[in-house]
Amino acid sequence: MEKNRFDRQVDFILELDKEKNILRQNHLSGYVRRENDAEHAWHMAIMVYLLKEYANKDFDIAKAMMMALIHDVVEIDAGDTYAYDPKAKLDQKEREDKAAQRIFSILPDDQRDELKALFYEFEACESAEAKFVRAMDNFQPLLLNDANNGEDWRLHGVTMEQIMNRQKRSAEGSKTIWEETYKIIEKNLEKGNIKKD
Amino acid sequence: MEKNRFDRQVDFILELDKEKNILRQNHLSGYVRRENDAEHAWHMAIMVYLLKEYANKDFDIAKAMMMALIHDVVEIDAGDTYAYDPKAKLDQKEREDKAAQRIFSILPDDQRDELKALFYEFEACESAEAKFVRAMDNFQPLLLNDANNGEDWRLHGVTMEQIMNRQKRSAEGSKTIWEETYKIIEKNLEKGNIKKD
Repeated sequence: MEKNRFDRQVDFILELDKEKNILRQNHLSGYVRRENDAEHAWHMAIMVYLLKEYANKDFDIAKAMMMALIHDVVEIDAGDTYAYDPKAKLDQKEREDKAAQRIFSILPDDQRDELKALFYEFEACESAEAKFVRAMDNFQPLLLNDANNGEDWRLHGVTMEQIMNRQKRSAEGSKTIWEETYKIIEKNLEKGNIKKD
Repeated sequence: MEKNRFDRQVDFILELDKEKNILRQNHLSGYVRRENDAEHAWHMAIMVYLLKEYANKDFDIAKAMMMALIHDVVEIDAGDTYAYDPKAKLDQKEREDKAAQRIFSILPDDQRDELKALFYEFEACESAEAKFVRAMDNFQPLLLNDANNGEDWRLHGVTMEQIMNRQKRSAEGSKTIWEETYKIIEKNLEKGNIKKD
């Protein structure tokens, strides 16, 4: 017998619990331990709300918050792909597509379609919501790395070119966030926390 | 010199990072470790969005999600107060008021006032948003406890009366969630995971 709507929603909610065990490369402030995907998404969603005044374009706040909250759900199956690991990035899309298919299909069909669309909208980074959420996805770990005096950047030997390639896309979501980002990058370059190319 | 608006927002965002270190009494599914406040709030905010169709009354979704995301911020100073610890509950309000004053005041004045109001609206549990978020605050750990076959309830010797006193308030936010909650409570009472009074 097919599961009813409520049971499928609860199954998905319990599946999400696994995201709390997916560790990212960056650490919490104070460098106590690595951050997990759920904590990162929680932090980002609050930032979407608090910093919305800096967005280049108006956007749907609930939609953007939900996008932030679920943007890493695929990592339950696909694992975290470090932003500065070119090898892992090669098959990232394939791994994440498969994960999106399995995980969102736990939901009732209408919500499966809605959340999958939201996930791929984030990935495409074309809508106002996606561009602002992407800016938060960049700015949140930047703030933690800066609070930790660049410890994670130094550990991974991250270069100015790598940082710029990732962070410059924040300007599409928010010129202000990008200006503040650039100040933080410059400061850490001067300190030697980010390698000159 | 007074800090500018953006710096105060960033200071608050970094302050929030501490919530990832506040441990709750309940464990993640699989009983791997205790859950922290940030993970709990992330899970709740997604549930607010996914289960909104079951709310007794229509509500503002972005407002309710933000309420869920920040409802435990005061625990950075006040610590987690276990729902079934009557002694800790005695001075809970005093501790949390002091924390709300300090933590939200890091923000620019308008956002300080907005988030404080949102926190106290949750506490008062009178608005449609607060009632539904409260139902999620009850239902989320109930699902994890049930997934762990009631391990945390047995550990703390939680009784039917204690569970009912807390969980029955979910009906104010959602009759459906309350009915599903009651089925889960009954099942765990039969299994001996919840003590008869």
